[in-house]
Amino acid sequence: MIRLGVFQMKALAGDISVNLEKIEKAAIKASREGADLLVTPELSLPGYGAGDAFSDLSLDMTSPEISDLQKISSDHNIALVAGFAEKAGEKIYNSAAFIDGTKDPICYRKSHLYGSYEKFHFSAEKPETVLINFKGCKLGFLICYDVEFPENVRRLALAGAEMVLVPTALPKDQYAPMVARTVVPCRAFENQIFVAYANHCGSDGIFDYQGQSVIVAPDGEILSSAEDQEAVLVADCNPARYGQSRSANSYLEDL
Amino acid sequence: MIRLGVFQMKALAGDISVNLEKIEKAAIKASREGADLLVTPELSLPGYGAGDAFSDLSLDMTSPEISDLQKISSDHNIALVAGFAEKAGEKIYNSAAFIDGTKDPICYRKSHLYGSYEKFHFSAEKPETVLINFKGCKLGFLICYDVEFPENVRRLALAGAEMVLVPTALPKDQYAPMVARTVVPCRAFENQIFVAYANHCGSDGIFDYQGQSVIVAPDGEILSSAEDQEAVLVADCNPARYGQSRSANSYLEDL
Repeated sequence: MIRLGVFQMKALAGDISVNLEKIEKAAIKASREGADLLVTPELSLPGYGAGDAFSDLSLDMTSPEISDLQKISSDHNIALVAGFAEKAGEKIYNSAAFIDGTKDPICYRKSHLYGSYEKFHFSAEKPETVLINFKGCKLGFLICYDVEFPENVRRLALAGAEMVLVPTALPKDQYAPMVARTVVPCRAFENQIFVAYANHCGSDGIFDYQGQSVIVAPDGEILSSAEDQEAVLVADCNPARYGQSRSANSYLEDL
Repeated sequence: MIRLGVFQMKALAGDISVNLEKIEKAAIKASREGADLLVTPELSLPGYGAGDAFSDLSLDMTSPEISDLQKISSDHNIALVAGFAEKAGEKIYNSAAFIDGTKDPICYRKSHLYGSYEKFHFSAEKPETVLINFKGCKLGFLICYDVEFPENVRRLALAGAEMVLVPTALPKDQYAPMVARTVVPCRAFENQIFVAYANHCGSDGIFDYQGQSVIVAPDGEILSSAEDQEAVLVADCNPARYGQSRSANSYLEDL
């Protein structure tokens, strides 16, 4: 069983140190509520709206900001998922790091970039199946638009993921509620896994965000959800409690 | 543009002639409302609960009951989708026929059988991509459990389907609202197509049904929906009206 935290965050575009402070405060709050892990939004370190600053703010695993995340994780005894612009040679990826104390970080790079803004600033990675064993549960990773493709979630579920963690930056528009309240719960149900969707909220001056972060159970139940304000969601995620649902909705076996 | 009808039906298990009468009445009602096409539930001719009678009630394209459907279609100037047990050599398939007046019927056979009841009574066909051009719109077909697998709907959408018609028999249980109100709308949105989901309602003595039939637009909007009573839903389905949604949610291009 994992007690999972999701930080719906109002990031400051272009200022990693401010965003690290916000992440630390949320980590303290989540840890006090017993959370084992806190998922923060897509590009939570630089802010999704950082635009031309992504290049200067891009990091690799030796960057001090990654050590800062490790210190936050160690100090408050909570694992973290944080989004950052990842420098890799000439390329910059839209990545998320799983940070568990001082252990080596594990990275996932976004495969499905959305729209001209992301395609201008980032390179797309081919779809990767990144899985981690954490407290007896197998975690998979996707970022934002990735989760809107059933193929990506299915790939992780067939590889054994019991929970998929999704940092996101879903802008506020007429389609956003459909993504946050229909597509994301459907991904959980159709694979009988947990899905955690951690969005930005408010505005960073470039984009307005939808909020509506959510933690969904394998039977499609919304365990915890936010509206449009900053929030730290916490929910107990225990795959063993969903045997009846997996047996009635045996999608992975019947595929 | 197609004006689409969906018949949420309380079938009589084991009595094709009663069910044909009910289908004719619904066809008259839908036709009076200008519908071009009426989708009826899974196994709407024999009734989903017919059980051991499926074998005796199984039909092929030469059966008089298919001619009866053609006469209903011709008399009331409306195409029909009707579910039946299809005899093919030693096998019986769970099939749906598309009937457009006296033209040759076109059949789709269910690929994903749900649970022991269906697996006992029917053979599963391999997933088939059955597409029809009807009044300028490309229609695809699935039956019930088929639509719960994103792979099946994606296959049709990639082949050009603009609308997927789904006769279904969704029993009443704790998971049914998730299927009817989250999974089905998600299938429409994630492929930017129309989905029509025609369920049974009430009880046939063997099964209780959820109702909640629905017609969903490419942007995920529910155009028409039923609760738990018999109903004829009608909605205008015009793919040309959803260019903005397809462009903002460009899943098929970005896959």
